[in-house]
Amino acid sequence: MKAVVYKGPRDVAVNKVPDAKIEKPTDVLVKITTTNICGSDLHMYEGRTSVEAGKILGHENLGIVIEAGSAVERVKVGDRVCLPFNISCGFCENCERGFTGFCLIANPGNAGAAYGYAEMGPYSGGQAELLRVPYADFNCLVLPPGAEEKENDYVMLSDIFPTGYHATELAGMKPGDSVVVYGAGPVGLMAAYSAMIKGASKVMVVDTHKDRLALAEKIGAIPIDHTDGSCIDQILSMTNGQGADCGCECVGYQCHDHTGHEVPNLTMNNLVQSVKATGGIGVVGVFMPEDPGAADALAKKGQIAFDFGAFFTKGQRIGTGQANVKAYNRRLANLIAAGRASPSFIVSHELPLDRAQEGYENFDARKDGWTKVVLKTGA
Amino acid sequence: MKAVVYKGPRDVAVNKVPDAKIEKPTDVLVKITTTNICGSDLHMYEGRTSVEAGKILGHENLGIVIEAGSAVERVKVGDRVCLPFNISCGFCENCERGFTGFCLIANPGNAGAAYGYAEMGPYSGGQAELLRVPYADFNCLVLPPGAEEKENDYVMLSDIFPTGYHATELAGMKPGDSVVVYGAGPVGLMAAYSAMIKGASKVMVVDTHKDRLALAEKIGAIPIDHTDGSCIDQILSMTNGQGADCGCECVGYQCHDHTGHEVPNLTMNNLVQSVKATGGIGVVGVFMPEDPGAADALAKKGQIAFDFGAFFTKGQRIGTGQANVKAYNRRLANLIAAGRASPSFIVSHELPLDRAQEGYENFDARKDGWTKVVLKTGA
Amino acid sequence: MKAVVYKGPRDVAVNKVPDAKIEKPTDVLVKITTTNICGSDLHMYEGRTSVEAGKILGHENLGIVIEAGSAVERVKVGDRVCLPFNISCGFCENCERGFTGFCLIANPGNAGAAYGYAEMGPYSGGQAELLRVPYADFNCLVLPPGAEEKENDYVMLSDIFPTGYHATELAGMKPGDSVVVYGAGPVGLMAAYSAMIKGASKVMVVDTHKDRLALAEKIGAIPIDHTDGSCIDQILSMTNGQGADCGCECVGYQCHDHTGHEVPNLTMNNLVQSVKATGGIGVVGVFMPEDPGAADALAKKGQIAFDFGAFFTKGQRIGTGQANVKAYNRRLANLIAAGRASPSFIVSHELPLDRAQEGYENFDARKDGWTKVVLKTGA
Amino acid sequence: MKAVVYKGPRDVAVNKVPDAKIEKPTDVLVKITTTNICGSDLHMYEGRTSVEAGKILGHENLGIVIEAGSAVERVKVGDRVCLPFNISCGFCENCERGFTGFCLIANPGNAGAAYGYAEMGPYSGGQAELLRVPYADFNCLVLPPGAEEKENDYVMLSDIFPTGYHATELAGMKPGDSVVVYGAGPVGLMAAYSAMIKGASKVMVVDTHKDRLALAEKIGAIPIDHTDGSCIDQILSMTNGQGADCGCECVGYQCHDHTGHEVPNLTMNNLVQSVKATGGIGVVGVFMPEDPGAADALAKKGQIAFDFGAFFTKGQRIGTGQANVKAYNRRLANLIAAGRASPSFIVSHELPLDRAQEGYENFDARKDGWTKVVLKTGA
Repeated sequence: MKAVVYKGPRDVAVNKVPDAKIEKPTDVLVKITTTNICGSDLHMYEGRTSVEAGKILGHENLGIVIEAGSAVERVKVGDRVCLPFNISCGFCENCERGFTGFCLIANPGNAGAAYGYAEMGPYSGGQAELLRVPYADFNCLVLPPGAEEKENDYVMLSDIFPTGYHATELAGMKPGDSVVVYGAGPVGLMAAYSAMIKGASKVMVVDTHKDRLALAEKIGAIPIDHTDGSCIDQILSMTNGQGADCGCECVGYQCHDHTGHEVPNLTMNNLVQSVKATGGIGVVGVFMPEDPGAADALAKKGQIAFDFGAFFTKGQRIGTGQANVKAYNRRLANLIAAGRASPSFIVSHELPLDRAQEGYENFDARKDGWTKVVLKTGA
Repeated sequence: MKAVVYKGPRDVAVNKVPDAKIEKPTDVLVKITTTNICGSDLHMYEGRTSVEAGKILGHENLGIVIEAGSAVERVKVGDRVCLPFNISCGFCENCERGFTGFCLIANPGNAGAAYGYAEMGPYSGGQAELLRVPYADFNCLVLPPGAEEKENDYVMLSDIFPTGYHATELAGMKPGDSVVVYGAGPVGLMAAYSAMIKGASKVMVVDTHKDRLALAEKIGAIPIDHTDGSCIDQILSMTNGQGADCGCECVGYQCHDHTGHEVPNLTMNNLVQSVKATGGIGVVGVFMPEDPGAADALAKKGQIAFDFGAFFTKGQRIGTGQANVKAYNRRLANLIAAGRASPSFIVSHELPLDRAQEGYENFDARKDGWTKVVLKTGA
Repeated sequence: MKAVVYKGPRDVAVNKVPDAKIEKPTDVLVKITTTNICGSDLHMYEGRTSVEAGKILGHENLGIVIEAGSAVERVKVGDRVCLPFNISCGFCENCERGFTGFCLIANPGNAGAAYGYAEMGPYSGGQAELLRVPYADFNCLVLPPGAEEKENDYVMLSDIFPTGYHATELAGMKPGDSVVVYGAGPVGLMAAYSAMIKGASKVMVVDTHKDRLALAEKIGAIPIDHTDGSCIDQILSMTNGQGADCGCECVGYQCHDHTGHEVPNLTMNNLVQSVKATGGIGVVGVFMPEDPGAADALAKKGQIAFDFGAFFTKGQRIGTGQANVKAYNRRLANLIAAGRASPSFIVSHELPLDRAQEGYENFDARKDGWTKVVLKTGA
Repeated sequence: MKAVVYKGPRDVAVNKVPDAKIEKPTDVLVKITTTNICGSDLHMYEGRTSVEAGKILGHENLGIVIEAGSAVERVKVGDRVCLPFNISCGFCENCERGFTGFCLIANPGNAGAAYGYAEMGPYSGGQAELLRVPYADFNCLVLPPGAEEKENDYVMLSDIFPTGYHATELAGMKPGDSVVVYGAGPVGLMAAYSAMIKGASKVMVVDTHKDRLALAEKIGAIPIDHTDGSCIDQILSMTNGQGADCGCECVGYQCHDHTGHEVPNLTMNNLVQSVKATGGIGVVGVFMPEDPGAADALAKKGQIAFDFGAFFTKGQRIGTGQANVKAYNRRLANLIAAGRASPSFIVSHELPLDRAQEGYENFDARKDGWTKVVLKTGA
């Protein structure tokens, strides 16, 4: 089969590789129809992770079940399914509490597994023609009839829509709240979109890329252009000087200041300042326990110089971590089916799998207008 | 009246000062019977805050109402009342949501007011014969008949019992959980005690002071002696290598490592290591937005070098801030009245108000056996 | 001043009465500008309550503060304020937990007080030129600049918008849920509107009045015409035979079946059938502990023949009771201010106070097109 | 193998039947060591359900895995396991939200399956030498080393301990609350025990059986002897006339008044009276959608004459339904392992499986001292 393979820093290729296949009776095999490039793929692409050469990438996957293991009961051949990026067993101590992003069994010795990702277990990704899906009865979201018309919406349920939604949940957002979102990349826009859906009164989105800020505005959010470093002043002036009710970190460890320098503690300290006392902060941008490639001495150790005193004095809360996709994907699918959510507004480019390389290159460059790349594997 | 007055670093005195009096129609005047020295008073005592000379200290107060303002309706002269350390109006945006530790009105321009404390408003403390209590109908916890027999229990409702309890709430503790508490000072012991009351399966308390660890053991907790720096190993070995379900920070910015050096990020980074993935961390130890007297360059700015990458990867949560005492004091009072909680086990010394200086000196020195000093103002 | 006075069953009049005035230092006096007739006023109007003749009616009130008691601190003369229908002290055991609809002090011996309502304390209503507002710092929602342009929106914060919202909260509604609302009167429409704001995937509204169903459709809900008694079939067929995720009772004890007979247990038993197993039901329609005027023997005693076995087997939940308006009014006000909510869509008639009688008569008759009557007291 | 078989009303026998065996790759086979008679078995025993003759009874089961299906991954032969009475798939819409008591797959067309129970699917019970356990990786609670010493404690995790705990959760009980429990049978005692563990200030248990009330007192609860019909007066006088903070229904549809007559609405209406306004009520006593054998006309239809008006006016909440055992069994197991819970205090009789008939007969007769019967199948 054809698959997108990681070769080394800033080097991916579409190669012929052995077909994915059923390995355990609880697996299904999925013929991928739509699969995305994720912003977190870029951490690997840029060589800022430990991912090994030869890994098949891709954790935002949707397709059709073409074979089912002997113990699979609920999912049927022919079902159109969207796969959460986290692979989870469904029966460990964390999965049974709904923390499917921290499965203790799928990636032994670690909490959490995923398709095609650094340190997330031995699983191949889905930027390929075929994908093996473990614990299929637990992991597959079976899509409703007619889903083929909205694949670009439903595929967002694999990661960025639930991840953006998770940011708002971690932040404790409630209807009527004001929300500030740092980062207008795909996840930040999904956080903003989720906040709008959940009845936020005011959603402010901070970024320096005008094309992304324009998308934020399009969905009803207030764009905060940080090009001149003024985001905190802008936010405070829109919130009676108190700060927003809650905030979302959708940037992660490779964040840059408005002059273009990587400053790992920037968004977190800005959030402490721009969220009100008693407010909540949800962090879904990725931070790494170690980052040998970082410029900053603390960052190499996975640390940031965090304004903990201000954070404590304001009595704020932080929730972090990868989204437990299954906690949200079914209810978000209901919204898509009912026509009340259309996360595909974010898609800027739809490319055949063969042109994945071009997608990686332009998306990584944050080239103007390249907000989200969807790969199509169809005939 | 007599009152404990702050003179300067490591200098307090019991002085004659003008009587406290009713200033607004919503005030009551309380004749103090029992008032404690709090661990957080020591930050002021040691000169590590901005508190001005002349301030009357004391925010853990209990006494009898002797006069009530004209608008006071619920509280009556003669009522025995315990006063939350936080002064709150009851009607601002934060108070109405239960965040009485972050009142926007009692200390204009800040979120949160308190009796006798640095930067917490113009209010005198209660280490004195008389105390003015603002917004009395909202702030006074009226004690049940017979409370005079248990004043040393009930006075703990002013601060450390709710504060310890708050730590377990911020950490998201549920029955059956394992809990690690850093710090076996009064607040840490109250956190451990609260965890036991709430049905924790295993409460581990970390400290280096043997007298305090002995108290932890007495209430059913597991003492973790950190004298040799081994606390994390001990905790992991008691929790199948996963870490505790949740953790409590009850030390604050002046924490010391096991060799006696002040290391401001120590407990937080230890918590990230000793709490499991998906676990929660409650922080009630005080951290300051600025600490000019700190040795550490980051600490001067109120920052710590925080293991944010590990924290994120483990998907943990942190809740912080001063306890909203009113959120808990009524239910904890019920437990005391029913004989199901007796937080006075922590009291090591009961001194007359006149000997407050001796109490400060020995408590500040963490002199062996000085775990909690209660001051009595009675005839 | 002029005021709407209850004279007896189906008899109200606009009379001259003594001016409302400040009675306690915590009161303010409000010059009413907008005040509504509520569906629950009709229970009194129809003689189905114990309300005494001479009572000034009206609990949905908005106006301008013209005088403030000596202990009032936050609210200022000139403030435009919306008043929750529940009068609450702010400092009793229930108020401090946010249950302001069940204040233990404002109506001694009962839990809960209100303006101008049967058995809710000695308070006059606001269908008048002036209104005395007790515990003003706690009760007044001060409206933002420009609110005079949206009085018909903001006045809904006094009762029906928070009450409808409360129904969805009691039902445990979350984003993506399907919701069934029984009753397309003002409260039912507000419940449906709240569910839409909170991100419901599907909101079904059951009624037999076509004008009201049309309003439901206008806000994006699905009208379920029950004229032929088929509502349950319709709902089950729209929810895969499972029933809705949650349901709202917005009718109350005077509910009628599709043939026009009063059947007190109808909506509750229909809800058990039309909500799925594990689902939640929120009840804000009024049920009375006694109803001497009822036709039904059980109903006279305040009982209904409830399908408790089915309810238990399905593992459903019910939450009930008057809305604690202050739990929601601030966040709903934010939505109005931001232009994200406009509950005035419900207003069908705007009448001067003098024509209140006409409003009562037509609204009580459910006359076609009379969905909500707003009274204006202005010059 | 030997098994307890239902023959007809008040007729069970220990018969030789075909061995249980693995039927699907996700099953395990368990050699039962300890299995209990449950109060809910008595509904079947008394002929008040539709259970068919020949059914093997028993849903409170503990034993050792002796064979595992080919797809079983986590559970190993030799593991000592406790089985939740609810059989759940782990991957349906309800299971994934934690509602394992309402599995949509294990008992198609219904929500919820169980071992050996009327209308809960085709599954045999565990009052037998062998038990087939479906979806074994999801359903088995693997017990810790040393569990064989505490089998009478751990077996209570199959049903009554989680069920009692569930009652307190459904009631919304928090530390410091007062709680009233109707019924001092095994489930009522477990509810009371759970409330004590969770830090209730006052637990009142209502019954007329003195032996059971004595057990309640032994665990620190307050026995309320209802022999004279005075329970509500007693409860109100212990709660300042307000009623308890929350209440638990642990009796069900076959409840009797103090004169010995079956009165199906008795406990629910008593709960409305004896719980305070704003309080919560958890219902785990079984109510049936139909009860042809009932004396009462409403009861035949599964209805009760419920004081809905009082319930609404007090703004109370009700949660119902079978316990989702997996939501609690792990944390309760931690408490047993740590020595902080010993639910075996309830066991009055330990009989060999062969004497099951005697157990049923005496337990059904509520014979003095027969509070809980444990059956042992060992050699």
